[in-house]
Amino acid sequence: MGKASLAKGTRDFGAEEMKKRKFIFGNIEEVFQLYGFNAIETPAVENLETLIGKYGDEGDHLLFKILDNGDFLGNVEKVFGREKNISEITAKEVAPHIAGRALRYDLTVPFARYISMNRHIVKLPFRRYQMQPVWRADRPQKGRYREFWQCDADIIGTDSLLCEADLTAVFHRVFEKLGIKNYVIHINNRKVLEGVAEMIGATERFNDFTVALDKFDKIGKEGVRKELQERGFTDEQIRKAEQFFISSTLDSQALAKWKNMLAETEIGSVGISELESLLVYLDASGFNHHILFDGTLARGLSYYTGCIFEVKVPDSGIGSIAAGGRYDNLTGIFDMPGISGVGISFGADRIYDLMESHNLYPQDTGANCKVLFCGLDLQSLTFCIPIAERLRSEGITCNVYPEASKLKKQLDYANAAKVKFVAIIGENERINKQVALKNLESGDQETLDIETFIKKTKSWS
Amino acid sequence: MGKASLAKGTRDFGAEEMKKRKFIFGNIEEVFQLYGFNAIETPAVENLETLIGKYGDEGDHLLFKILDNGDFLGNVEKVFGREKNISEITAKEVAPHIAGRALRYDLTVPFARYISMNRHIVKLPFRRYQMQPVWRADRPQKGRYREFWQCDADIIGTDSLLCEADLTAVFHRVFEKLGIKNYVIHINNRKVLEGVAEMIGATERFNDFTVALDKFDKIGKEGVRKELQERGFTDEQIRKAEQFFISSTLDSQALAKWKNMLAETEIGSVGISELESLLVYLDASGFNHHILFDGTLARGLSYYTGCIFEVKVPDSGIGSIAAGGRYDNLTGIFDMPGISGVGISFGADRIYDLMESHNLYPQDTGANCKVLFCGLDLQSLTFCIPIAERLRSEGITCNVYPEASKLKKQLDYANAAKVKFVAIIGENERINKQVALKNLESGDQETLDIETFIKKTKSWS
Repeated sequence: MGKASLAKGTRDFGAEEMKKRKFIFGNIEEVFQLYGFNAIETPAVENLETLIGKYGDEGDHLLFKILDNGDFLGNVEKVFGREKNISEITAKEVAPHIAGRALRYDLTVPFARYISMNRHIVKLPFRRYQMQPVWRADRPQKGRYREFWQCDADIIGTDSLLCEADLTAVFHRVFEKLGIKNYVIHINNRKVLEGVAEMIGATERFNDFTVALDKFDKIGKEGVRKELQERGFTDEQIRKAEQFFISSTLDSQALAKWKNMLAETEIGSVGISELESLLVYLDASGFNHHILFDGTLARGLSYYTGCIFEVKVPDSGIGSIAAGGRYDNLTGIFDMPGISGVGISFGADRIYDLMESHNLYPQDTGANCKVLFCGLDLQSLTFCIPIAERLRSEGITCNVYPEASKLKKQLDYANAAKVKFVAIIGENERINKQVALKNLESGDQETLDIETFIKKTKSWS
Repeated sequence: MGKASLAKGTRDFGAEEMKKRKFIFGNIEEVFQLYGFNAIETPAVENLETLIGKYGDEGDHLLFKILDNGDFLGNVEKVFGREKNISEITAKEVAPHIAGRALRYDLTVPFARYISMNRHIVKLPFRRYQMQPVWRADRPQKGRYREFWQCDADIIGTDSLLCEADLTAVFHRVFEKLGIKNYVIHINNRKVLEGVAEMIGATERFNDFTVALDKFDKIGKEGVRKELQERGFTDEQIRKAEQFFISSTLDSQALAKWKNMLAETEIGSVGISELESLLVYLDASGFNHHILFDGTLARGLSYYTGCIFEVKVPDSGIGSIAAGGRYDNLTGIFDMPGISGVGISFGADRIYDLMESHNLYPQDTGANCKVLFCGLDLQSLTFCIPIAERLRSEGITCNVYPEASKLKKQLDYANAAKVKFVAIIGENERINKQVALKNLESGDQETLDIETFIKKTKSWS
């Protein structure tokens, strides 16, 4: 007798949650498609060698590895010798020999593998979106799950800044559709940050610099200062760097100011001119609002090389709800160098939490049963069936209560299932070919002939 | 440097395949919703104790188990002793101590767990659908994958035959929407089969009887005869049983004939009267066609207790594309006895293969880019952006080619991406606020002012 429990860090999604999730995923997908992105899907299970070493040591540690089927100990004997005691070997040593596969950790590495394997089919520039769960053996906590969903869109095979503009427009359209009004799109450019590192004489320690800066959001200016000190940056370097810890509307004045500040560094100037191109495209698209040019935005991943994005809702208590950036070498890890691209990712679970806490869902997120037929005897129940099928043929969701139970029981059920209208049929209605239509919210009830009833239900949708 | 390869038995789905898959899944989901089913989703990863022992020995063997994170060998030492040699223990003994979780094997057991855990929330009768991948460590072969999709709909908490009728209607509506015309819904009833077993004096060996009969489809009457002989059934028993290996349209004559044939067995008569009720409801719904009352349909799972279904396309070379049946005790394995229900499952991968081999997909399965804007210089490219955004606001999918490349390169791209229309903008068009609209199929080209162009594109959709 199994005990009914969920694996730690995982969730079921019931009917109400699924309606809301479909509302979020559906809107994101609709916008992805509007911008010409193609859906792809990759398997949940990848060969370990595809994933290992791609996410740093911590990532390797957080992979869910799949135990090999069959005699996996035979392999261990081969590697460590038959006479080895269990106590003489460690889990870390053994794992790669008994688990040759692992669960998808993100959507980017599988996408890179897909492109590498299909390089002769995929025509560049290629726009793909992918909305699938990923798994990480992280310690579960509020808002952090071991199974969670990523919604990624990438454009690869071109370095045109128009792609960054398209993805910015995607952010706008998605959040507008979802009814999230006070979002802010933070934008920076990794080349601008490289310029800052050069200005403070820390070109060699660019990674250290961005890792510290990446925490600005959480630990503030003072915290970053301390972090940089600990990492051996001098007070002079820190003082200089802090001039660049500023943010403002992304407009031509701001860019002119930064251009001056970074005039001495070539890479920094390139970064600013990229932002200038982006601004031209954003002005043309009309999606040039809600944008903050944020000098403190760094993005943790060393992977990014150009424009970077993070979308936040101030004072929501929820971190970034979407993010992304440009990279130079997506498929290098799979022997296919030189594929540049830019991608964004929506954090569906955080968006869900945000919409929940801010009560942003539309009242009816769809797929509700519009009318429940209540037959008061078996013949009446059968009488309901062709009427219900006619409604369904009109695209109207409805159910026939499957038993000729007492009316009270059927009405209780309708109320619990939040069905607004019930169509009651007893002997009288059946003989007169009528329906007693009751609005459970108002309590109003009227007797209608069948054609009038059908017309009425059609007018609801 | 990782080698780019897929884990054995898994698949990527590219843009074209995803369009077709979304067509199939979308239509199935739409019908599920039309009949008032509620979407739920359960996690990919379940505790091993939830799954183990639920699918028989073979199922246990085919589970993908997940290696515990951290020091899993510590646990092995505890169980087997620190001084044990590797050669002294077997993989089968060790596995449960190093892998406490496994991947979802089907959607039924997780659904039962969900109901058991949410028994105080879920209002019965409850209609749920669930469309998610499942994983089995089966030997991969043509049409059999280690990751594949199930699309299940179940109604639980009532034994009304109206549920069977609803699910039969769901079969009809789904296959009609998909354009699969020559499907046959095979129907039988496990109680009818119990009656047959009783009639031949093999009540005690009902399971043996159904396991043999279940192979009728593959090995034919002769094969089943042999199989029954091997299982120790007498020639007399087999001869008697064979009278029931018949199939015909499900109608009142057929049922009357079976009623006579099974008159001596109570359980068999109950089975026939269940089919009589179903027929009444099917006649009322109008979905009483394409149905075969098939005395040889047994369904492998001992789990089923009432009506059983299988949908096939004759001469397609593909097995059943959907199936299901009624069960009496969904959640008994989770300490919650007595939940009766009936469910069906669509085999999305087989339906995909069938539609592919019979060329049944509509020409445009949606989400294609309707028009590609080709800017011939950077200023023209920028000029395209607000026009593209206006189209998108009208719900028309379009792209701006992100670079001001030579026209030939852009047209080659449009052709490869199967975009029918390109809107070409060079210096002339830009100055005159016009668009040169080219139909790549016919080769026709016309120059339009922007408003006319927008009107025209709107008329396409």
